[in-house]
Amino acid sequence: MTLDFLGTLERTHMCGDLRAANDGQPVVLMGWVNRRRDHGNLIFLDVRDRTGITQIVLDKERGAAAHLKAESARPEFVVAAVGQVRLRDADLRNPKMPTGDIEVVATELLLLNDAKTPPFSPAEDAIANEEVRLKYRYLDLRRPEMQHNFRLRHEVARAIRNYLSDDGFLEIETPFMTRSTPEGARDYLVPSRVHAGEFYALPQSPQIFKQILMVSGFDKYFQIARCFRDEDLRADRQPEFTQIDLETTFPSQERIFRIVEGFLTAAFKAANITLQPPFVQMTYDEAIRHYGIDKPDMRLPAMTDLTDTVTPDLRTQLKIEQALPILGFVIPSAGTLSGTQKRSLIEEIRTFFGETGLDFLDVARLKTNETFAPLAAAIADEMKPAEADLVVVITPKLGTPERWNYDPQWIYKKVGALRLELAKKFADKHGLFKQTGTAADYKFCWVTDFPMYEWDEEAKVWQAAHHPFTSPHEDDITSGRLVSDKGAVRALAYDIVLNGTELGSGSIRIHRKDVQAEIFRSLGMSDEEQKARFGFFLDALEYGTPPHGGIALGLDRIVMILAGATSLREVIAFPKTARAIDLMVDAPTPVSDQQLRDLSLRTVVRT
Amino acid sequence: MTLDFLGTLERTHMCGDLRAANDGQPVVLMGWVNRRRDHGNLIFLDVRDRTGITQIVLDKERGAAAHLKAESARPEFVVAAVGQVRLRDADLRNPKMPTGDIEVVATELLLLNDAKTPPFSPAEDAIANEEVRLKYRYLDLRRPEMQHNFRLRHEVARAIRNYLSDDGFLEIETPFMTRSTPEGARDYLVPSRVHAGEFYALPQSPQIFKQILMVSGFDKYFQIARCFRDEDLRADRQPEFTQIDLETTFPSQERIFRIVEGFLTAAFKAANITLQPPFVQMTYDEAIRHYGIDKPDMRLPAMTDLTDTVTPDLRTQLKIEQALPILGFVIPSAGTLSGTQKRSLIEEIRTFFGETGLDFLDVARLKTNETFAPLAAAIADEMKPAEADLVVVITPKLGTPERWNYDPQWIYKKVGALRLELAKKFADKHGLFKQTGTAADYKFCWVTDFPMYEWDEEAKVWQAAHHPFTSPHEDDITSGRLVSDKGAVRALAYDIVLNGTELGSGSIRIHRKDVQAEIFRSLGMSDEEQKARFGFFLDALEYGTPPHGGIALGLDRIVMILAGATSLREVIAFPKTARAIDLMVDAPTPVSDQQLRDLSLRTVVRT
Repeated sequence: MTLDFLGTLERTHMCGDLRAANDGQPVVLMGWVNRRRDHGNLIFLDVRDRTGITQIVLDKERGAAAHLKAESARPEFVVAAVGQVRLRDADLRNPKMPTGDIEVVATELLLLNDAKTPPFSPAEDAIANEEVRLKYRYLDLRRPEMQHNFRLRHEVARAIRNYLSDDGFLEIETPFMTRSTPEGARDYLVPSRVHAGEFYALPQSPQIFKQILMVSGFDKYFQIARCFRDEDLRADRQPEFTQIDLETTFPSQERIFRIVEGFLTAAFKAANITLQPPFVQMTYDEAIRHYGIDKPDMRLPAMTDLTDTVTPDLRTQLKIEQALPILGFVIPSAGTLSGTQKRSLIEEIRTFFGETGLDFLDVARLKTNETFAPLAAAIADEMKPAEADLVVVITPKLGTPERWNYDPQWIYKKVGALRLELAKKFADKHGLFKQTGTAADYKFCWVTDFPMYEWDEEAKVWQAAHHPFTSPHEDDITSGRLVSDKGAVRALAYDIVLNGTELGSGSIRIHRKDVQAEIFRSLGMSDEEQKARFGFFLDALEYGTPPHGGIALGLDRIVMILAGATSLREVIAFPKTARAIDLMVDAPTPVSDQQLRDLSLRTVVRT
Repeated sequence: MTLDFLGTLERTHMCGDLRAANDGQPVVLMGWVNRRRDHGNLIFLDVRDRTGITQIVLDKERGAAAHLKAESARPEFVVAAVGQVRLRDADLRNPKMPTGDIEVVATELLLLNDAKTPPFSPAEDAIANEEVRLKYRYLDLRRPEMQHNFRLRHEVARAIRNYLSDDGFLEIETPFMTRSTPEGARDYLVPSRVHAGEFYALPQSPQIFKQILMVSGFDKYFQIARCFRDEDLRADRQPEFTQIDLETTFPSQERIFRIVEGFLTAAFKAANITLQPPFVQMTYDEAIRHYGIDKPDMRLPAMTDLTDTVTPDLRTQLKIEQALPILGFVIPSAGTLSGTQKRSLIEEIRTFFGETGLDFLDVARLKTNETFAPLAAAIADEMKPAEADLVVVITPKLGTPERWNYDPQWIYKKVGALRLELAKKFADKHGLFKQTGTAADYKFCWVTDFPMYEWDEEAKVWQAAHHPFTSPHEDDITSGRLVSDKGAVRALAYDIVLNGTELGSGSIRIHRKDVQAEIFRSLGMSDEEQKARFGFFLDALEYGTPPHGGIALGLDRIVMILAGATSLREVIAFPKTARAIDLMVDAPTPVSDQQLRDLSLRTVVRT
């Protein structure tokens, strides 16, 4: 078999373009053989490109040379077909293919490249195991689902860029080879050749640079920026990931919310989903009390606080701690449970709680007990379950651990976690996690007023709950609470949450050196340490730093959710495994002794 | 002095917005004090943001508190002013300021932050030395010129992205932590913590990935991508730089030219420059013969080939080598030179050529010599100099070095270099390098048909002139020249050149494994070496790789030229010095022993 060169031949259409209206037109198509059917004098090649598939007909009587070539064509061969569009006979039309009304009768066929039998076929629906897919990523990416995901990713990024640009934001590129930033995770380092023994760090985020850009008066900055974290990888993390990063001067929290709602609406529009901003807002405190978590999945009903519903007397009788919260929630449409199913569910809940002292309160049984029937009625009245809903009420048993004393939100969080667990268990019944392709699939909310500090019970100190540039509420500064009552100080920090996933996190930043110094002081950071870690930034605060704030959202995650994918690897073209390996290019690898010598490095293999 | 909080105050206008038509409106402006003039009961603050400057008037009689605060305001303080727009008196209007017809009479002034006296003032035209500018980059970036450059950069990138997206290109992100690619420069390495002793490399370009994306059927890919090269830095290089990278399948060279001309026209449009594509094209051979260089500066007239003008007899009389080229060029409008100036210029030219055997032929003197007068006339006839032009003719003296034998282009290159040298010398006279702000400032051309191989005289072998994935001309393959006559093989490689600067470089790639194997073989690369360096890519070639090709252009350089800047550091927000140091954040730095231990590394300080 001899391969052909393309020469000066130009494609006239893409393989997804042709319709009945093109009947009779001369066309040139180029692409991959998706399938081949040999009917003797007639050979059919389904030819695929990123837009779709067209059926090419090679008729020996109309073009013997082209037919001969088609005989050697195999799946994934690269071909060019010169021919004419023809309507298919009515009974041979394929309504499942956009091009199913037509076919192209080829008079000329070029075999531009051949292909070995691939380890898996991009034309098949069955998906190979992920290691094979990653190793042969170039084949995997030919699958229509993957082509769709990256077109979607492109359109989403484009919509965001244009929205922000139209709103006066400038995209400004910040360095990748920089200095370690203080964000908790490990930095990836880059050894310097010129400065022996010294290192750059890949940025965990452009945080410091975007703040510097505000100090520089750029007023509205954004960047779709790669970020790097050397973490022990969980299933849903990648060592490099992409953030939509933005910052603005003289901001209010609400203005930042409007900006984010605006670009998310534009992004979702690119995927044909019409969002209706503004999004729901709640404080951290409300989120914990109603959902038991700071990233509420609002596709599910909130928890109900039954604390006041159960009177002190009833608590005594039911052996429930006084003063501690009692929480209920509903799993919609869970359906009737048999006695065995019910017992097994209660067992599961008790296993879930273990020794925490929390317990399931069986409302159904209360109902049949004269003493408690009114309580059951009151609970039903508060929670308003529908017929097929599962009602879960959780109470703290007498002797519930001390933890309550220093972590009053603990019960809410534990019950909230159970709520999510059961919602997953009954997902098929309630159907609330199913993608319907409409805006109803996407429940956004803002969570605000996070605590500024977290109490570290082991070290007995207050820790910054966010990065140390997050501003407290102005009145927590002016009132003196910043010094006198750390536990009550609220940060001007906010998260945007979609379907129980944190999409992004931001804050109004500290712009005054006196406030910044107080925060560092309260975190136990010495002047020297401050200077060593943030010296240039503290300097910058002294030369006219304006009030500023911003946010960063994970682009990979947004696209993943929009694509209905379950892993970030489905929306990153060349991702790494959980062991941070690129299986296709085979990275990382050892390097030459010369390269190490150039960098004044020696590797120390641990034994 | 007490600082104020912003509270809920929102800005109504930017400082460059207000005009006479806004007379009487209530406004809130926020920004930096650019200048302050204290006239007792009247204080004038020029307040600056990224859009411009507005004059704020604090009148003690109208607002004593605000006036008092203005007394403490100093340059670079951050302020918010609440007030009312007022037309200035006719004689006080400032036609040089867009807001010069009005001022804002403030009733309230917030001092949002103070500022130490900066090491240099963003309000001054005088520019501090570059080290100070880089260390205090946040102040430097406040200067209107820098604000302009980054707005321009944003608009240019945006125009390119939208043009390519509209043309069906998808922007797809490729990895930053990858495997060493074979592009000649040193890689920056990133040690792996999980895989002790192994390294990722930062990409010198997305070359391999974009080719893989073509194998994957994405058809039209682009990316505005950061690239990294650990080179010994020259004045005009940065360790990280940004490329407009693109690749397409089933391409012709001409189609790629149209794409690039399209996005460059869009980019220049964003800077109010209307280009007129298509751009001039010439082969490498023509570029060398007419300009003596593969990146011709077409703002200057081409060289004239006088080889045939000077007959063998005249050559003998003038002691000029037979058969070697004689080249002339004109420096326009150089003006009349005095005898001394002329002698000194000739001296300069002779110094420039040194022992090469090339020499200046004094046409003016030929003219006065009866024997040679016809030659002088013939030369003038060929070169058509205008009155004030400087005519330079260069001849090879008898005994010109052997180099000519293996490097026939050498004389063209040497004379071309002199042409550029003299053009710089007389730049003030001819004015061709001056920016006029019109399309005439920008002379583009395409250079095509580069040689596939370069002869390495020392090693006596052929080297690939480009990366080894560049395709030869199809007929150099089919004719067998690829094996039999390497010196004659032309690459399907092309450069885009602007004003003598190479903006970008591209090629049609090899898509067939037999051709790729031949190229590797001809470069003396063993099968093992091929497999070790490009294994996965050679595998990919076997599974249906389509014809493909592309190009990459330097975004930094395009913006630099459009901004009329003379250094890339003027258009990169946080650049590094020639020693690869970020003076603001102070990077690179030593890292902790723990970090090194985590990476199984030890630094070896050379003594």
